[in-house]
Amino acid sequence: MNRCNPLLYLVTDRALAKGRPIENVVEQAVKGGVTMVQLREKDCPTLEFFNLAVLIKRILAPFHVPLIINDRLDIALAADAEGLHIGQHDIPYVIARKILGKDKIIGLSVESISQAREANKLDVDYIGLSPVFVTDTKPELSIALGIEGVREIASFSRHCIVAIGGINARNAVDIVRAGADGIAVVSAIVSADDPMMAAREIRQKIATFKQ
Amino acid sequence: MNRCNPLLYLVTDRALAKGRPIENVVEQAVKGGVTMVQLREKDCPTLEFFNLAVLIKRILAPFHVPLIINDRLDIALAADAEGLHIGQHDIPYVIARKILGKDKIIGLSVESISQAREANKLDVDYIGLSPVFVTDTKPELSIALGIEGVREIASFSRHCIVAIGGINARNAVDIVRAGADGIAVVSAIVSADDPMMAAREIRQKIATFKQ
Repeated sequence: MNRCNPLLYLVTDRALAKGRPIENVVEQAVKGGVTMVQLREKDCPTLEFFNLAVLIKRILAPFHVPLIINDRLDIALAADAEGLHIGQHDIPYVIARKILGKDKIIGLSVESISQAREANKLDVDYIGLSPVFVTDTKPELSIALGIEGVREIASFSRHCIVAIGGINARNAVDIVRAGADGIAVVSAIVSADDPMMAAREIRQKIATFKQ
Repeated sequence: MNRCNPLLYLVTDRALAKGRPIENVVEQAVKGGVTMVQLREKDCPTLEFFNLAVLIKRILAPFHVPLIINDRLDIALAADAEGLHIGQHDIPYVIARKILGKDKIIGLSVESISQAREANKLDVDYIGLSPVFVTDTKPELSIALGIEGVREIASFSRHCIVAIGGINARNAVDIVRAGADGIAVVSAIVSADDPMMAAREIRQKIATFKQ
C-alpha cells in the first residue's frame, strides 16, 4: 500500500457543508491533516462535477494528497484524479481496473463480512468498510458492522482497510485499535464549524496508534 | 461520415416505455428501421446503466446498429459502446475525444445557431440540433430552433446534422427537407403501441428524401 495513505480520509458531501464552498472546506481539512480526499457528489451534473474535480485536484496538489472520485470513472479519467472509489452497485472492479490501468488507486466499498472475503480475490488498493456505525449520511445502510466487524475483517483481509460511517473524534481511536488502517469521515469534518481544527483533532487522536 | 448513419436515431427513455422493458422496445424499433440507438437514462444507477448498455449492445450487434451512450463516458468505455453523446453541460468534447480515441463516435448537442458555429471548430461526428420543436421530453429547453433553425444551421455546418425534439411521423419529412441528415426520436417510438411499426412508418417517410 504505497500509493495511498488513508489514515484520515475525507469524503465530501456538499449538502453537509453548511453553505460553504466545498473546495474551501477540503482545503482547510487538508491543512488540518487529512491524508486522502474522496469527492462524492451523487446528484451533481457531469460538467459541474468535472469542474469541481479539477479545482479540488489543483488545491490538493501542493499537499501531495490524492484525489479519489466516487463512482464516476468518467470524472476520474477526465480530471486525471489519482483514483476511483466504487461501491457494490457501480462499475465492476475488474472493468474499472482495465480502463484506469494499474497506476491508479481503486477502492471498493465492502458492506459485510462476505463481501470482504470476496474482495480478497481482487487487487483493489483498499477496502472501505461501511457502515461501522449507522449514520445519517447513508441512511439506506442500516446494518452496521460495528467495532467487532472491523476487527473480524482486519483479521483476514489482505487489503488496506478504511472504516467509514458515523466515525468522529470520539470513536476514531477504537476503530484504529480494532485494526483499521484508516478512518473515513464525512460530517465530522465537512459539517464542523472549523474543518481544519476538526481534522487536526481526529488526526492527533489516531496518531498515537498510527503514523 | 462513414461510421454512423443517424438517419433514424432512437433515443431511449425508460420512463416513456409504458412499463415495457426498454431492451424489447429497442429491439422492435431496430427491426422497424432505426439506424442508431442512444441510451439516455438520466437517473439510472451506474451498475444498472452498465448492465443495460451491455444488454442493448448485444441486441444491436446482429443489426450492425451502433450504440451511443448519453453523457456517461464511463458507461461508454465500460460497455465498449460505439460512441458517446454529450451535451453542453457534460464533459468537454476535447477531453472526451482524448479519452475515447479517434475510433469512437462522438455527438454533441447544439441548442442554438451560435453553438452550431462553435461546433464547426470541433471534429465531432455529428451534431444533435435540439429542440427543433418544444417537447415534453425535455421541458427545460424552451427555445425551439424550428424548421428555419435547421435550415440555417444546415447551410453552414460542416457536420452531419441530426434533429431532435418533438419529431414524429408527421413532421419528419419537413426536417429532412430542411437539410437534416437524420432525425432523432424518443416518444414517437418509445411510447408507440407498436415500436416496430412506428419506426417503419417514419423510416419510410424519410426514405423518399434520404437513403
